[in-house]
Amino acid sequence: MAEPGPIVDLRQSPTALRIQRGVMRHLREALDVCAYAEVPLSNGRRADILGLGPKGEITIIEIKSSLADFRVDAKWHHYKDFCDRFYFAKPPELEAEIFPETEGLMVADNHGALVLREARHEPLASARRKAMLLKLARLGAARIHLLMDPGERLPRL
Amino acid sequence: MAEPGPIVDLRQSPTALRIQRGVMRHLREALDVCAYAEVPLSNGRRADILGLGPKGEITIIEIKSSLADFRVDAKWHHYKDFCDRFYFAKPPELEAEIFPETEGLMVADNHGALVLREARHEPLASARRKAMLLKLARLGAARIHLLMDPGERLPRL
Repeated sequence: MAEPGPIVDLRQSPTALRIQRGVMRHLREALDVCAYAEVPLSNGRRADILGLGPKGEITIIEIKSSLADFRVDAKWHHYKDFCDRFYFAKPPELEAEIFPETEGLMVADNHGALVLREARHEPLASARRKAMLLKLARLGAARIHLLMDPGERLPRL
Repeated sequence: MAEPGPIVDLRQSPTALRIQRGVMRHLREALDVCAYAEVPLSNGRRADILGLGPKGEITIIEIKSSLADFRVDAKWHHYKDFCDRFYFAKPPELEAEIFPETEGLMVADNHGALVLREARHEPLASARRKAMLLKLARLGAARIHLLMDPGERLPRL
């Protein structure tokens, strides 16, 4: 991994960061799901939020902070190859109707989130889940270690 | 998990923290092993350092900062049920001869570590490895999330 990711990614808008915080808090407090922000995937994309349930269930949440943000992204469906459930997350002021009805949807602010539409359950193949658990376990260790002891030579994920 | 663990555990001696830093740096920089400090295990003990290799290999390193520290611990062999390879890590001033010849041994200071004796390879059962990877991936997420957004209701590991 060239770059295990800072805790706050300066490329994100304040709205996106509020949604990130609210969704991650909801996952932790309501669902017992442990979540990472900004997870690099093997297809070269980064998941905004990736949650890991107590049985290894993987949920990806793609944050869309504005209509423009949604329209500019034609590649969101590629995230679905890396999770059991996929949601968009939007701020309260953005209309729910712009999102595809086939996908899960959350609304979130700085303090929490609410599921507006449940995602379909499309289970990952077991080999991919296993590979992702290993990568996530290494990613978590590398990010924490970087805070404890900054270094240049970091593991490749 | 009641407590996902601070980055610096105040119960540890300065010598133990120096060894922790050097061993973790060695794992990361020389071996491409991502390491966690203070990992709770399902037998109620905590591994001082738990390293995760690129193929999911698990190494536990038990830090012994003094002869007294080694003598007081009659339970180190219980760590061996949770890893493929087990090492003791000692500071330079502690004699290597006090450690059992059957186990791996590292010497470490604040800057790095050196393997004095390789550990035997005793592979984990696949079900335990799988369970541990999931727990570690959740532990990493929970620890990072706690830094991003302190909270009280944390996942159980």
